[in-house]
Amino acid sequence: MEDVICVSDYNKKVLETMNIEGIKIFDTTLRDGEQTPGVAFSIEEKVKMAESLDLLGVDAIEAGFPITSAGEKEAIKKICDMGLKAKICGLARSNKKDIDVALDCNVDRVHTFIATSPLHREFKLKMSKEEIMARAIEGVEYAKDHGVEVEFSCEDATRTELEYLKEMHRAVRDVGVDYINVPDTVGTIMPKAMRYLIKELVNDINVPISIHCHNDFGLAVANSLAAVESGAKQIHCTINGLGERAGNASLEEIVMSLMALYGVRVSLDTTRLTYISKLVSRISGVVVQPNKAIVGENAFAHESGIHVHGVLSKAFCYEPLTPKLVGKESEIVVGKHTGLHAVEKKLRDFGIGLTRDQILEIVEDIKLIREGGKKITDEDLIAIAAGYVGKVPDEEKEVKLEEMSIISGLRITPTATAILNINGTKKVGSNIGNGAVDAALNALKSIVPEKITLEEYRLEAITGGSDALCQVSVKMANEAGIKALGKSVGPDIVMTSVNAAIEAINKLRKINKEGKTQ
Amino acid sequence: MEDVICVSDYNKKVLETMNIEGIKIFDTTLRDGEQTPGVAFSIEEKVKMAESLDLLGVDAIEAGFPITSAGEKEAIKKICDMGLKAKICGLARSNKKDIDVALDCNVDRVHTFIATSPLHREFKLKMSKEEIMARAIEGVEYAKDHGVEVEFSCEDATRTELEYLKEMHRAVRDVGVDYINVPDTVGTIMPKAMRYLIKELVNDINVPISIHCHNDFGLAVANSLAAVESGAKQIHCTINGLGERAGNASLEEIVMSLMALYGVRVSLDTTRLTYISKLVSRISGVVVQPNKAIVGENAFAHESGIHVHGVLSKAFCYEPLTPKLVGKESEIVVGKHTGLHAVEKKLRDFGIGLTRDQILEIVEDIKLIREGGKKITDEDLIAIAAGYVGKVPDEEKEVKLEEMSIISGLRITPTATAILNINGTKKVGSNIGNGAVDAALNALKSIVPEKITLEEYRLEAITGGSDALCQVSVKMANEAGIKALGKSVGPDIVMTSVNAAIEAINKLRKINKEGKTQ
Repeated sequence: MEDVICVSDYNKKVLETMNIEGIKIFDTTLRDGEQTPGVAFSIEEKVKMAESLDLLGVDAIEAGFPITSAGEKEAIKKICDMGLKAKICGLARSNKKDIDVALDCNVDRVHTFIATSPLHREFKLKMSKEEIMARAIEGVEYAKDHGVEVEFSCEDATRTELEYLKEMHRAVRDVGVDYINVPDTVGTIMPKAMRYLIKELVNDINVPISIHCHNDFGLAVANSLAAVESGAKQIHCTINGLGERAGNASLEEIVMSLMALYGVRVSLDTTRLTYISKLVSRISGVVVQPNKAIVGENAFAHESGIHVHGVLSKAFCYEPLTPKLVGKESEIVVGKHTGLHAVEKKLRDFGIGLTRDQILEIVEDIKLIREGGKKITDEDLIAIAAGYVGKVPDEEKEVKLEEMSIISGLRITPTATAILNINGTKKVGSNIGNGAVDAALNALKSIVPEKITLEEYRLEAITGGSDALCQVSVKMANEAGIKALGKSVGPDIVMTSVNAAIEAINKLRKINKEGKTQ
Repeated sequence: MEDVICVSDYNKKVLETMNIEGIKIFDTTLRDGEQTPGVAFSIEEKVKMAESLDLLGVDAIEAGFPITSAGEKEAIKKICDMGLKAKICGLARSNKKDIDVALDCNVDRVHTFIATSPLHREFKLKMSKEEIMARAIEGVEYAKDHGVEVEFSCEDATRTELEYLKEMHRAVRDVGVDYINVPDTVGTIMPKAMRYLIKELVNDINVPISIHCHNDFGLAVANSLAAVESGAKQIHCTINGLGERAGNASLEEIVMSLMALYGVRVSLDTTRLTYISKLVSRISGVVVQPNKAIVGENAFAHESGIHVHGVLSKAFCYEPLTPKLVGKESEIVVGKHTGLHAVEKKLRDFGIGLTRDQILEIVEDIKLIREGGKKITDEDLIAIAAGYVGKVPDEEKEVKLEEMSIISGLRITPTATAILNINGTKKVGSNIGNGAVDAALNALKSIVPEKITLEEYRLEAITGGSDALCQVSVKMANEAGIKALGKSVGPDIVMTSVNAAIEAINKLRKINKEGKTQ
């Protein structure tokens, strides 16, 4: 490791007194990560991410919360059927109905939970300590009877009385629980207190303790590591630190801290971290800030003259590890003559499995973009491919764009005219807007017969110049309140927005027909 | 505090053994924050941020690194002349020239540094331990002789041998240093090791120890707090955790952790945190990810049904503190009839001081946007105002846009025609591009006589719908290699990009004339 990592020797000094090994990585991007406000994954998107997480090498994947919808259940079932190396886990409240639905998915592990803090007991559950304990026991027992692994969590554990917490843990231990998870649900504990709490809990029972931290004060990673220092054996985390509110502990920071600072042998393929971070960012539409540790755009970039000089003479002067170790390299992969096979291989390397037709479409996309003189980097390719995950196949599209012209500028009312082919019938419509994008989307809305509203519009420049690729996500809703997210990647902001909107319109129609919740 | 904060009781348990008080907040957004790759603040932008930091109530502001350029020196000088309550600090290498330039700015404190780790000694400085110590002593002594406060840092302290580090500290103590800062320059230490190191250093000498952490493993905040637990009395931090690579410790996380988790009395006006975060994000062009603690868009947002139910019955079920405490409220401030005085007052409340003419222009902007039916929130107003900070005044603009038409769409080559008024002469030009924005910018480039290149293009949607405001930053360079950043905010992505480009072109001309480095 000497040649790829260069960290403080003071770490070794304090590590002498610690015994940290066999730490399991439990990824909950697909469950707590999906609880990020505004994020909803489609079945296909969940499947793709599970595939990539498995290639990364996580020990367990919490694939979702099966009871919440039929689509959620279907996604988890599909993931269970993939034959991944990682254990697949489903979340369930401590009741038979929730657990039955999870079991129905064929999960390897059921993760049951019930809230135990005074606040949650009084204001949310309105239940006594005894009632809560009875429910917890019943849930764990029921799941264990069905032959699966069971993980149990006292929700809001860090705001629960220590004695009661221990009693709860002993109670579920007595009915055979396999893992006990300790959620810092609202992210309100500090590392020193976490060390104290976990030591108390680890010393009390002989069941592996797991930790689940939220980042409300920016301490999720530090708290997870503090728990591990006190004997916790499993860490819950998410790619990019996605999750409710300020998110969960970030997988990439946890894994690289364990490896580089604690010298723990990690079985993950860390060179995949940059790719999976980008993939999850593209799919979720949640940007990663440039100054995000490990996977941010600037994580290994240097600005000041002094730093640049230092890095040129010896990279470790200003870098804690070799960027290659986390898959950071801005290699240009797709040139003028790159064809199907090269793209296919590259996507497979990233763990993005697409159909042959989709890859052919991507190659076409790339050719179009290349004609504009733009080079395609790994990052661009991942963005384009992520745009294909969960897309409505061309032959199933009811609404297709045939023509679009938009005029805008200074002292001109932005105006757009579109021709749509809806189930074989051409329809034309014009409209105005606040700007070119607004006018174009208004034109589309004026043509389709259904009443649709734009719920959300997100846009992100992927790279440098004005000819760079941008990614647009458009969330639309129909009269029935059904929502669908359309995503598109391209060099022209206006047309990329239009394509994303058309994707969303087709998805809405598909969902409406299939009666599926997304 | 009981009514606004609800955190884990385990914190109190471990706090009993700690004595944390009188912690000083040293903000380095204007110095290390500006070292964020791609970020360069203008003089006026630095002045505005210093003003806002002072209103927030930080104890010290590191205003910059005076030797780096004439513009930098001028900015620091201006900030020193503002009569702020915060101590103004300037960075200097340990040599008389650097220190002289800092003294020339009239700073309250000079912060000298020299690298001490074996890596930096061998590969960067190529100096012996003794030579480095002599330089450090000389620097501190020289600055002290000029009657200012002196803070000293061993760069890369956390990778420096403990005995040598102590010797360095004793040496500068002997010549009267006021603060000794301990930089974790490459972010390579873990909290437990930090606790050990700082305890060793605090026990060794009687000079206040300061801490400066980088976030390469996501541990900057935890490491800063660990240092404070061991007796450090000052924390270096930046708004939004800006800074070299993965950035510095985030001020908002540090301050709220101290207040909520450690129960430390903090003299800052925390209700300003959300505003200053947005202001710095707008000015720097560095986005804050939605799942960023304290100031992220989602930091207090709730998605899952269970959480929403919990929050409705009792907010503390899923919130560690009342969002109001950090200034989170999405109040709509500007309506149809809002005029100059309301906007002026609101901006003053946020600490954004603009001229009357600029405020009048903002009111006009708002009216235009309002006519499109869009409501203006606090966030929008801050974005618009931030766009005015550092703008070339209208009467000084050599290049003005008179006309612009852009046509784009599906199966149309995006084409733009512009008429510019350059120093009174009208010139017309047309060009094509990959998309509407690219065509428009190419048209501008084809008209201006100077050869300019687009170095960077950033765009960000500020809020929800397709009619939401977007912010565009355009960095342009001229033949002499001078670069300037133009920013604009508006409802139309295409025209906002054009306006930002015209701003950048005017800035380039201004800088070229004044011979200033920015």
